Amino acid sequence: MANEKIQDSLTLDDARRVIDAAVAKAEEIGQPQDVAVVDAGGNLKAHVRMDTANIGSIHIAINKAYTSIAFQTQTKDLNDITRPTGDLFGLSDAHGGRLVVFAGGIPLVRDGRVVGAIGVSTGTVEQDQEVAEAGAAAF
Amino acid sequence: MANEKIQDSLTLDDARRVIDAAVAKAEEIGQPQDVAVVDAGGNLKAHVRMDTANIGSIHIAINKAYTSIAFQTQTKDLNDITRPTGDLFGLSDAHGGRLVVFAGGIPLVRDGRVVGAIGVSTGTVEQDQEVAEAGAAAF
Amino acid sequence: MANEKIQDSLTLDDARRVIDAAVAKAEEIGQPQDVAVVDAGGNLKAHVRMDTANIGSIHIAINKAYTSIAFQTQTKDLNDITRPTGDLFGLSDAHGGRLVVFAGGIPLVRDGRVVGAIGVSTGTVEQDQEVAEAGAAAF
Amino acid sequence: MANEKIQDSLTLDDARRVIDAAVAKAEEIGQPQDVAVVDAGGNLKAHVRMDTANIGSIHIAINKAYTSIAFQTQTKDLNDITRPTGDLFGLSDAHGGRLVVFAGGIPLVRDGRVVGAIGVSTGTVEQDQEVAEAGAAAF
Repeated sequence: MANEKIQDSLTLDDARRVIDAAVAKAEEIGQPQDVAVVDAGGNLKAHVRMDTANIGSIHIAINKAYTSIAFQTQTKDLNDITRPTGDLFGLSDAHGGRLVVFAGGIPLVRDGRVVGAIGVSTGTVEQDQEVAEAGAAAF
Repeated sequence: MANEKIQDSLTLDDARRVIDAAVAKAEEIGQPQDVAVVDAGGNLKAHVRMDTANIGSIHIAINKAYTSIAFQTQTKDLNDITRPTGDLFGLSDAHGGRLVVFAGGIPLVRDGRVVGAIGVSTGTVEQDQEVAEAGAAAF
Repeated sequence: MANEKIQDSLTLDDARRVIDAAVAKAEEIGQPQDVAVVDAGGNLKAHVRMDTANIGSIHIAINKAYTSIAFQTQTKDLNDITRPTGDLFGLSDAHGGRLVVFAGGIPLVRDGRVVGAIGVSTGTVEQDQEVAEAGAAAF
Repeated sequence: MANEKIQDSLTLDDARRVIDAAVAKAEEIGQPQDVAVVDAGGNLKAHVRMDTANIGSIHIAINKAYTSIAFQTQTKDLNDITRPTGDLFGLSDAHGGRLVVFAGGIPLVRDGRVVGAIGVSTGTVEQDQEVAEAGAAAF
């Protein structure tokens, strides 16, 4: 309501380019996906749910993207460390149900800065990761 | 995980057409907006946050769309009825912080059936409504 | 965990300078306060609860700061518009219990950009606003 | 609003001394951290997020401090006992997403009483513990 505005860490054009690349990969491998992009603050910038993708994966995709920016890491790198024998066992419970500790979330990096993240869910973790990588590569 | 799949009440192509029309109207009036489309189940189908639109409006836009499908009504029609003198005073409190009782949410109708909804937030209620109407008209 | 890092929209030094100025004003007027500073993404950067300030005001202060950045506005400007006769009646219910629609939240602006916000709570709304203004002025 | 006031179990000066010592240690080891101090009631007394520390660690740090006071224990001592073979397996799930069962949360003790706790997050668990110990030692 003031004249001053926030400055987005990534643009909607950025987010759409990332999502389009992810969707193209998902179509190529024949696996409908939920795809979400968040900004540096973890706030949703854009989201699509491909036809017949999981409604339960809406939140998983958004939360993968959130987790990825929140810890500045790929979510797959949280996998082993949060297993029952790992140093961070229990991490997935420790933040109000928002953290995802398996593959499919990847930070988006520009000029050496983490400025957002993509999250993908519905397929197998391998498919989610592959689609997220395709999206991140288009950033 | 089974071969059988859900049937979406509206497609991603539908949602994108609605969002693109809403974004075009938002650009025309010079007001960046958050725009969300949900399906008949109230689940997010697609969302965009235009550059410099409010991060607080992510949830408001999604919740306007949710409210609109949840009660099969435009959110603006909940306005007077939920005021302190109205029959549904208190409705906005009654569902875990998900209901929005002012303008900007509109059901999407096809073949006489409500199959989804659009929600728009960041501008004035008049702007939100105008942009939501432009989106709904493209459905 | 990667070498790339996020870039903070404001620094901890910024946040401490804002909080110190707010605390100094609170001491001057003899009203202990909760004071919170969030970044452009609405994420907490720093918080203090002065001695004998309200524990209930921890969340109110944080949520005032969140609301202020989330809608790029002073929270006091949401006051009249969300009253029973206002256009946005029901706003405070519309976002999961995170919005505060009375005085004490102010955006922090740098180089024409909204880059964070301060929120203050425990005193009267006039005191909260006065202390938040003192904090914002030090930014 | 009454003239009677609560009595803080630790002062803001205490919390700041603890946080300053933790931040100094974090700078010494070159690992930015989120640092939180809670009082005997588990309520946030003060928090800082060092520059480039994780936004996901805001809640983890606060929840480590909360867990530490809530169970009057170092969070690292909950680690083995909550693993799948432990007596308290499932504890991390048992309290609404607020419990952390790995290192980085330490009670603050004065005159034989637990009067607060510090929580640290962003680094490895060893780094979090080291920084929390430095903070607790300054109490």
